[in-house]
Amino acid sequence: MEFAFDATTRDLMERMNAFMDEVVYPAEPTAHEQIQRNYAEDSWEIPPVIEDLKAEAKKRGLWNFFLAGHPDQGGLTNLQYAPLAEISGRSIQLAPPAINCAAPDTGNMEVLSMFGTDEQKKQWLEPLLAGEIRSAFAMTEPDVASSDATNIELSIVRDGDEYVINGRKWWITGAMNPNCKVFIVMGKTDPTAERHRQQSMILVPRDTPGLEVVRGMHVMGFHDRDHGGHAELRFTDVRVPASNLIGNEGEGFAVAQARLGPGRIHHCMRSIGVAERAVQMMCERASERVAFGKPIADQGVVRDWIAESRVKLEQLRLLTLKTAWLMDTVGNKGAHTEIQAIKIATPQTVEWILDKAIQVHGAGGLSQDFPLAEMFAGIRTLRFADGPDEVHKNSLARAELKKYR
Amino acid sequence: MEFAFDATTRDLMERMNAFMDEVVYPAEPTAHEQIQRNYAEDSWEIPPVIEDLKAEAKKRGLWNFFLAGHPDQGGLTNLQYAPLAEISGRSIQLAPPAINCAAPDTGNMEVLSMFGTDEQKKQWLEPLLAGEIRSAFAMTEPDVASSDATNIELSIVRDGDEYVINGRKWWITGAMNPNCKVFIVMGKTDPTAERHRQQSMILVPRDTPGLEVVRGMHVMGFHDRDHGGHAELRFTDVRVPASNLIGNEGEGFAVAQARLGPGRIHHCMRSIGVAERAVQMMCERASERVAFGKPIADQGVVRDWIAESRVKLEQLRLLTLKTAWLMDTVGNKGAHTEIQAIKIATPQTVEWILDKAIQVHGAGGLSQDFPLAEMFAGIRTLRFADGPDEVHKNSLARAELKKYR
Amino acid sequence: MEFAFDATTRDLMERMNAFMDEVVYPAEPTAHEQIQRNYAEDSWEIPPVIEDLKAEAKKRGLWNFFLAGHPDQGGLTNLQYAPLAEISGRSIQLAPPAINCAAPDTGNMEVLSMFGTDEQKKQWLEPLLAGEIRSAFAMTEPDVASSDATNIELSIVRDGDEYVINGRKWWITGAMNPNCKVFIVMGKTDPTAERHRQQSMILVPRDTPGLEVVRGMHVMGFHDRDHGGHAELRFTDVRVPASNLIGNEGEGFAVAQARLGPGRIHHCMRSIGVAERAVQMMCERASERVAFGKPIADQGVVRDWIAESRVKLEQLRLLTLKTAWLMDTVGNKGAHTEIQAIKIATPQTVEWILDKAIQVHGAGGLSQDFPLAEMFAGIRTLRFADGPDEVHKNSLARAELKKYR
Amino acid sequence: MEFAFDATTRDLMERMNAFMDEVVYPAEPTAHEQIQRNYAEDSWEIPPVIEDLKAEAKKRGLWNFFLAGHPDQGGLTNLQYAPLAEISGRSIQLAPPAINCAAPDTGNMEVLSMFGTDEQKKQWLEPLLAGEIRSAFAMTEPDVASSDATNIELSIVRDGDEYVINGRKWWITGAMNPNCKVFIVMGKTDPTAERHRQQSMILVPRDTPGLEVVRGMHVMGFHDRDHGGHAELRFTDVRVPASNLIGNEGEGFAVAQARLGPGRIHHCMRSIGVAERAVQMMCERASERVAFGKPIADQGVVRDWIAESRVKLEQLRLLTLKTAWLMDTVGNKGAHTEIQAIKIATPQTVEWILDKAIQVHGAGGLSQDFPLAEMFAGIRTLRFADGPDEVHKNSLARAELKKYR
Repeated sequence: MEFAFDATTRDLMERMNAFMDEVVYPAEPTAHEQIQRNYAEDSWEIPPVIEDLKAEAKKRGLWNFFLAGHPDQGGLTNLQYAPLAEISGRSIQLAPPAINCAAPDTGNMEVLSMFGTDEQKKQWLEPLLAGEIRSAFAMTEPDVASSDATNIELSIVRDGDEYVINGRKWWITGAMNPNCKVFIVMGKTDPTAERHRQQSMILVPRDTPGLEVVRGMHVMGFHDRDHGGHAELRFTDVRVPASNLIGNEGEGFAVAQARLGPGRIHHCMRSIGVAERAVQMMCERASERVAFGKPIADQGVVRDWIAESRVKLEQLRLLTLKTAWLMDTVGNKGAHTEIQAIKIATPQTVEWILDKAIQVHGAGGLSQDFPLAEMFAGIRTLRFADGPDEVHKNSLARAELKKYR
Repeated sequence: MEFAFDATTRDLMERMNAFMDEVVYPAEPTAHEQIQRNYAEDSWEIPPVIEDLKAEAKKRGLWNFFLAGHPDQGGLTNLQYAPLAEISGRSIQLAPPAINCAAPDTGNMEVLSMFGTDEQKKQWLEPLLAGEIRSAFAMTEPDVASSDATNIELSIVRDGDEYVINGRKWWITGAMNPNCKVFIVMGKTDPTAERHRQQSMILVPRDTPGLEVVRGMHVMGFHDRDHGGHAELRFTDVRVPASNLIGNEGEGFAVAQARLGPGRIHHCMRSIGVAERAVQMMCERASERVAFGKPIADQGVVRDWIAESRVKLEQLRLLTLKTAWLMDTVGNKGAHTEIQAIKIATPQTVEWILDKAIQVHGAGGLSQDFPLAEMFAGIRTLRFADGPDEVHKNSLARAELKKYR
Repeated sequence: MEFAFDATTRDLMERMNAFMDEVVYPAEPTAHEQIQRNYAEDSWEIPPVIEDLKAEAKKRGLWNFFLAGHPDQGGLTNLQYAPLAEISGRSIQLAPPAINCAAPDTGNMEVLSMFGTDEQKKQWLEPLLAGEIRSAFAMTEPDVASSDATNIELSIVRDGDEYVINGRKWWITGAMNPNCKVFIVMGKTDPTAERHRQQSMILVPRDTPGLEVVRGMHVMGFHDRDHGGHAELRFTDVRVPASNLIGNEGEGFAVAQARLGPGRIHHCMRSIGVAERAVQMMCERASERVAFGKPIADQGVVRDWIAESRVKLEQLRLLTLKTAWLMDTVGNKGAHTEIQAIKIATPQTVEWILDKAIQVHGAGGLSQDFPLAEMFAGIRTLRFADGPDEVHKNSLARAELKKYR
Repeated sequence: MEFAFDATTRDLMERMNAFMDEVVYPAEPTAHEQIQRNYAEDSWEIPPVIEDLKAEAKKRGLWNFFLAGHPDQGGLTNLQYAPLAEISGRSIQLAPPAINCAAPDTGNMEVLSMFGTDEQKKQWLEPLLAGEIRSAFAMTEPDVASSDATNIELSIVRDGDEYVINGRKWWITGAMNPNCKVFIVMGKTDPTAERHRQQSMILVPRDTPGLEVVRGMHVMGFHDRDHGGHAELRFTDVRVPASNLIGNEGEGFAVAQARLGPGRIHHCMRSIGVAERAVQMMCERASERVAFGKPIADQGVVRDWIAESRVKLEQLRLLTLKTAWLMDTVGNKGAHTEIQAIKIATPQTVEWILDKAIQVHGAGGLSQDFPLAEMFAGIRTLRFADGPDEVHKNSLARAELKKYR
């Protein structure tokens, strides 16, 4: 057992931190303005400053870290990627897309990398890896509890050389962005098959007739206009070539499972960075702000929050790192319980820290003058993402109970 | 001791409930659309449907309940008003303004009623009581911890027959609304006086030269475009006649204190209504929504949330009612500790309930499709309103400690 | 609605407080010694000082308050009794037995008063009301989840003019006390009857052959040697006259239900007194104890605990009082939900307060030098008493869900 | 970074687990009886079964693991010792003394090993390492907040070739055990010296005249008669040779600091074992126990507790392991913050888990029939041990705040 990062990781962390200090943090005010302008003008354009950051990151060789073990990407392991993802989370709107490691593209690139045909890779994976286009992953549906995959209602029906798609999706992250050029869509090809063989995944280009991007879902009042928001989609007799299927018919559930593990841990890694930023902001504000004659950092209750934040966060990070290590050593399946554990632990810990950081900032902490409220809203969604926490707790408990029977 | 409401209250509750069922709830979708349009068009107009509701409420005699003991208003006590305010909280954007019992106007009308000159009453109180205009209360400042009144920096300087005002304010609720015609502004007339005699309050009409309404503050992404939001204001050599002073120089702190007690309890009363609405929504959704073959209302954890919500809420309501009764019987000063207690208890209880109601709704619970996220954002601000909870807890503890010395 | 106690109650509260100050608190050190001697000598004798307190209480007319509405007892209502029970809870080991208002005798006296024959009343109720003997209530069984009454296994079989009893019980409060002369035993007379008609209750005198008092159960290391502890009982062919049955065969469940409502609220009332004592001790200790150069009462975290304690406790008391009022006005059945609510709220609130009071006392707070740890242990049991909280929450949630269907 | 234990550790874990399964767990019922007999007979003898376990452990080479890096002890690092200490915590009363790794002897042996003279080592360290005698560490005093070392009042005054000791101590763990042959006593040799140079440590044999073992302190009703309890001591003109001083005059504080780091982490390691035992018991009980027709393991709330327990515990263990690794690599001082962090996190996490495990066991969970209540009492004391959590949080927050200044 050994808790130090290896030399590769330490080197990349140093370069990543330099990138943050020199480029990303200084770009935040500009980005904030550009995003506010998006709101005012009802635009979903990605803030132009992000393109500048991407260019700079690419130049610095900070790019596509996420693709675990992929030799072309430098072959980072999950464990090596983890602290880099965390650092990117400290500027959650800017740094992940800057280094081309933003959800949902990371998961989509993994899917294409693992299950895509050569043609699919050429058409979609290459421009995604190059950061030229973005993509979405369309799984959640409005009318059913999406934690239960068998509930999926969107239909994908074979018709000659094509598939015909009908149904609705919502909370499709990134899809409001006009440069989000392709959607990976989960639907049912055979509702009569065995429970986990009914689903398939298929590529649907943005401009396919019959596909409507209906509206952006709000998250506690935010539209997430930095990254293409969360769209509601309607598919009406949408036709795509049969070759757009990812894998074979009936493999949709398996592909989704393969995608979810890394997706979840990436969210957790970045969320730890979010929490670190919040702790820093809380400390800085507490030291600056004076009430009743002394800095609020001298108040016992504020100290208690800071200490608890640090104690909680250290524990959470270690579990996330161990999970990454397990994924590297025994595979995503072997790390199933730990992935669930961090999926459960992360939002509750980070939300708690953000709440306290906001409180230390006073009413301003809820406003557009600080990023804390938006960070809170983003983290709050993780308690539902890929099924509510309660479903994961139930499953984790079942596994625990089995140990002692 | 007796826990039943009196006949007057029961009658008004019945009429109020009928008004909600027949008029207010049915108006919610229209209001939602009008508010969304405000966002899209960067407008701060009050949703027109609210004027319709006001007309109907007035016709039904459901108007100006809040003015405790004021004979012209039917002379309701705080205790009689409490359940009516609670009912109005069930449709928090529509019902309080519909019955002309919305903050901050209620507090402003109380101030004018108690401390205003005849001229001030005629000019401002009358149209406010009639619901023709709205008003704001400008106390909080951006650069200082506003929980400490001595921190106030806005200056009010006598110059002949006028006062000259310079400084900044923010979080001035309602001030973005163009029909918010007058601001009660707290500032310092004598920074050298004794700690609580430095402040004065003065009336500033909206159109006074030098007064800029800079921008609306956001609350977790919401602008509160239903009621005029929360403005940042800049005062640059703003001149108003000396007769605009409320009371005498140096009485600002005392007036603010007189205003805060009722203001706080009104927020608490309405927040209990917010929580009742959330419990109802949580129960309805839990009964309708099916996951893994049964309604989620059958899940133990969901039941636990519902039970805890009910248990917490019953306790909170009783303490709020007792506080109202104390204000009626021993006065606002005598009820000081209880007012602090409900000020502390209300946001933590209601926030907890809203969080669970959101979780039961899945991701939709955070979106514009349900009012829960906006209710959450509104309640969250109460943990700062009139000073953060931590200040109130500290003060309440000091009082408790004194009992045993 | 009116939150002041009536004159009768205020007068009794004053007399009760005088009794506490003049007699009960001064007797605590002696009682503590006598109880410690019980532990050392493995004795279950009631501390002799309690007999002195009883004599004094009787002389002062502070006696048998609990019997709601019983004319011979002064006819106090539940609401009038509530604050008296609370005051007695401030010295939880001494004051309740001193005024003959201690569990489980209060519930047993109610049962005999409502359902007993004249003969049963003469033999058992009269000496109980006189404080000459004590009694126990034998319901809980070791091998089954006692929250589900149909689980009861003890058998009561008619044999001529007698009933024959076989089975086991545990946690039978008071039964180790040799002066606990009679047990009300719940068992099954007809396991084939309808679910809630299988049970009967029967009186079993302590000295009946076949009845063994096996051992005292410990509660977090405490034996509760102040009041006869919590016994395990074994019934082997125990024979009692058929006339010992309370009510008719099959009425056991109904009698138990009638008993539980008042029993639960009495526990809650007294527990609020426990919490008040804890708050007082916490404040006194915090003011006296100096660390790092200032009293710990000046520490923000300690202040936070004190404030939260007060805020939680005020809410809990009001709900308990309202529940008492409901029992008086609409009956125990009508108050069912509220009884459940206080049953759920009380232990969690009071346990929280005790935990903080202990923390303020340092390690001593857990020791025999302060009553806090024993108070904690006693309150902790309430989360199981008459079924675990989780059962009550489930039931309360079901009722809540029904409201909105 | 690497999360697998090394081969040495894995081998020792396997042997330790075998020892637990084959020897320790089967001895628990006997130990329980022997301890209960101690209570009944007011004896403080160590349960004889522990001597058997020690013999067996020694034979198996499972002995003195704790002495980090000490070549004679196999030279285990803290990180290697951690999982072994955890395993021993699963039978907290028996396994730590069985392998001679029980507090406070471990800390005392470290002190003697690091700071003792050859003579002191020969006289006390050797029999301690051999498990022939036990020892105590006398630091806490009854009248002062012991979190502040400058508060210490016991005086150690040089008089010729002797030191004369006067003062009181309490909570001196192990000291009721007649085989606890020596006390390491912290006192002041020079109250006028610089704050952290006033204290010295001195060895006082049990049979020294003037040293009274006054009484055993209780912990929530428990006396801890398995290990010599927690004594109150009175020192009246106690004289020991000057050669009994550990180190030099004025080094007491430094020695105490050196001792506390390892002592704290050992407590944490074992406490994680306590929690693992609780999770196992909770799961087993939940699977066996039926209520309302199904095992309570099927109840959502119970599942939630189990899942949360697992998630919390995994995080806590990793932080403890990382702290051990830091102590090994950068020293106890370098690991200061992490030692504080686990000192804070451990009791709150383990207490939470124990509370839920008790709840799943029903009232029995609080009784002598299960070890859970005693485990709870033991863990509860950790929130005060070496200063209350609040002091550590305050200090940890100060360190965190400094990072951002």
